Amino acid sequence: MTISSPLVVVGSVNADIYVEVERLPIEGETIAARGGQTFPGGKGANQAACAARLSYPTYFCGQVGQDGHASLVKDALASAGVRLDHVTSVKGPTGHAVVMLQPGGKNSIIIVGGANVAWPRLEDGISRLTSNAQHLITRAGAVLLQREIPDAVNLEAAKIAKGADVPVIMDAGGAEGPIPDELLKCVTVLSPNETELARLTSMPTNSLEEILQAATKVQEMGVKQVLVKMGENGSVLVCDGAPPIFQPALLAPVVVDTTGAGDTFTAAYTVALIESQTPAEALRFAAASASLCVRTKGTIPSMPERKAVLQLLKEHPVAAESLSMSDEEGLKTIEGANSKAN
Amino acid sequence: MTISSPLVVVGSVNADIYVEVERLPIEGETIAARGGQTFPGGKGANQAACAARLSYPTYFCGQVGQDGHASLVKDALASAGVRLDHVTSVKGPTGHAVVMLQPGGKNSIIIVGGANVAWPRLEDGISRLTSNAQHLITRAGAVLLQREIPDAVNLEAAKIAKGADVPVIMDAGGAEGPIPDELLKCVTVLSPNETELARLTSMPTNSLEEILQAATKVQEMGVKQVLVKMGENGSVLVCDGAPPIFQPALLAPVVVDTTGAGDTFTAAYTVALIESQTPAEALRFAAASASLCVRTKGTIPSMPERKAVLQLLKEHPVAAESLSMSDEEGLKTIEGANSKAN
Repeated sequence: MTISSPLVVVGSVNADIYVEVERLPIEGETIAARGGQTFPGGKGANQAACAARLSYPTYFCGQVGQDGHASLVKDALASAGVRLDHVTSVKGPTGHAVVMLQPGGKNSIIIVGGANVAWPRLEDGISRLTSNAQHLITRAGAVLLQREIPDAVNLEAAKIAKGADVPVIMDAGGAEGPIPDELLKCVTVLSPNETELARLTSMPTNSLEEILQAATKVQEMGVKQVLVKMGENGSVLVCDGAPPIFQPALLAPVVVDTTGAGDTFTAAYTVALIESQTPAEALRFAAASASLCVRTKGTIPSMPERKAVLQLLKEHPVAAESLSMSDEEGLKTIEGANSKAN
Repeated sequence: MTISSPLVVVGSVNADIYVEVERLPIEGETIAARGGQTFPGGKGANQAACAARLSYPTYFCGQVGQDGHASLVKDALASAGVRLDHVTSVKGPTGHAVVMLQPGGKNSIIIVGGANVAWPRLEDGISRLTSNAQHLITRAGAVLLQREIPDAVNLEAAKIAKGADVPVIMDAGGAEGPIPDELLKCVTVLSPNETELARLTSMPTNSLEEILQAATKVQEMGVKQVLVKMGENGSVLVCDGAPPIFQPALLAPVVVDTTGAGDTFTAAYTVALIESQTPAEALRFAAASASLCVRTKGTIPSMPERKAVLQLLKEHPVAAESLSMSDEEGLKTIEGANSKAN
């Protein structure tokens, strides 16, 4: 796989409609918001924008509707440098989410799947992805998936990628149900956060030890590599036949907005992986990217350029550490670091 | 005033974001909508679109923001035939409203004023309207206002119109507070619905008699003509020195969606007025337009073309009736008609 092989992100694109309210309205009530703004988002679009911002050649395969939100999201992706040749337009609304921001940081969210869930439902064996998109996947450096489009579309992309020896990275965020076995078996790296990991395995994930046990369970489900995002507590990569690698978070001096930090982490890790960085190097690259993301308001606008990531890595020489599952001392050290991070 | 004198609508333009939910989310909760769609709206834009759809030359003066919603609303106005030469673009979001549709027809609404309330605040005596818009008003057939933009902008438009002998029609909908005296004195026809009339006068409006008394109070506040919209109960025009004129609603065979019916009524009445129809003819024209509006889903898409209005009027030869305030028998007749309309 040469560095020129593009990243192909197959996934969701959304208009995120933020309204700032004193409180939620009750049934039948009309209230005035203090403010509001609409931003491009969706886990697929976020991750594509992040990879393109990091200067990696990136295609986005997704669906928009026929409304004003379609141009909003396409413009944002194009500005970030994402190739849109494989974005298709379908009847009905573009996916969107209404985020009601309330005092004290509580958000209530209403999600409209729209074009993200309106992929053609064809007979078994007939493709949902265009033949151009299928061909693109076979020559990709990696395929990056999330869970805001139907499993069937993800499965198709993953199967094509696996058949062409293209690694599949899947962010576990975006849906609550179990991931189909068939899909898991095509995934090279699955990246959940602690909550998603707990849901996928029905196991507790309150300590690093529990997280490592749950990650092992995911491996038993058919995924070789599990990359767990733990927010300010860092991240841990669990690979078959190698000790887990722990990467502390590169703490931001001031955390302004954590929205999109997880998407940034997964996308940056994927970019580093295609660029043949070692897993430990890729973890550091991802941690630095996420750290820059939380320092600025917004999702796509807060995603860093490569230059800024490399600069931060120069300033923060903290490397990832290999762990032994039986190394009680190691676990304690990390838990100490974690509690400081809180 | 020749028929070629354009209608000038000064007012609001909105993106109306509808989401269909089983119930409202609670604090911190994320729920999926069954569906959702975003439509152009805002009382100013609705009324401009209606007048243009009725083939009357119509300009819209309003403000949009710099976001994806701006093109949505401008496209809709342009498609209806509205002239957009006097729409200006300002920083921040286009006005928008999130309408949460719940089972049983209950709506909870969150309104973001955005560009509609972001008119420049200048020193006293310095205009908020561009000199081109000011000139346009002086040569207008009528100026049509609502209450979703600041009173100061409405006042300026109304003063310029009054100074040039251009009639000012004002829909009382869009804001709950009192209408400034200075503005009322520039208004030729004020058109509230029963709820707005009650709020403006602090008087009950539960019967036609109460409505006529409240309308007389509005006349004492400085407005010569009061046009009260009573939905399926019809409308009544109260003019200085003439008996009130009652117009029954032209009942639709099936009422599909009443959204925009009030805006259609006010705009159609204004168009008929500029065209020198008599008040009684104008009331019939407005009633027919509103009747067609409620037969189709949507706001702007449901506004009728002139041809359909004329056809309906041919089929429904019911004329408006003059009332005497002291004519007890007349009032009873109408109340009988109203209760049938329910």
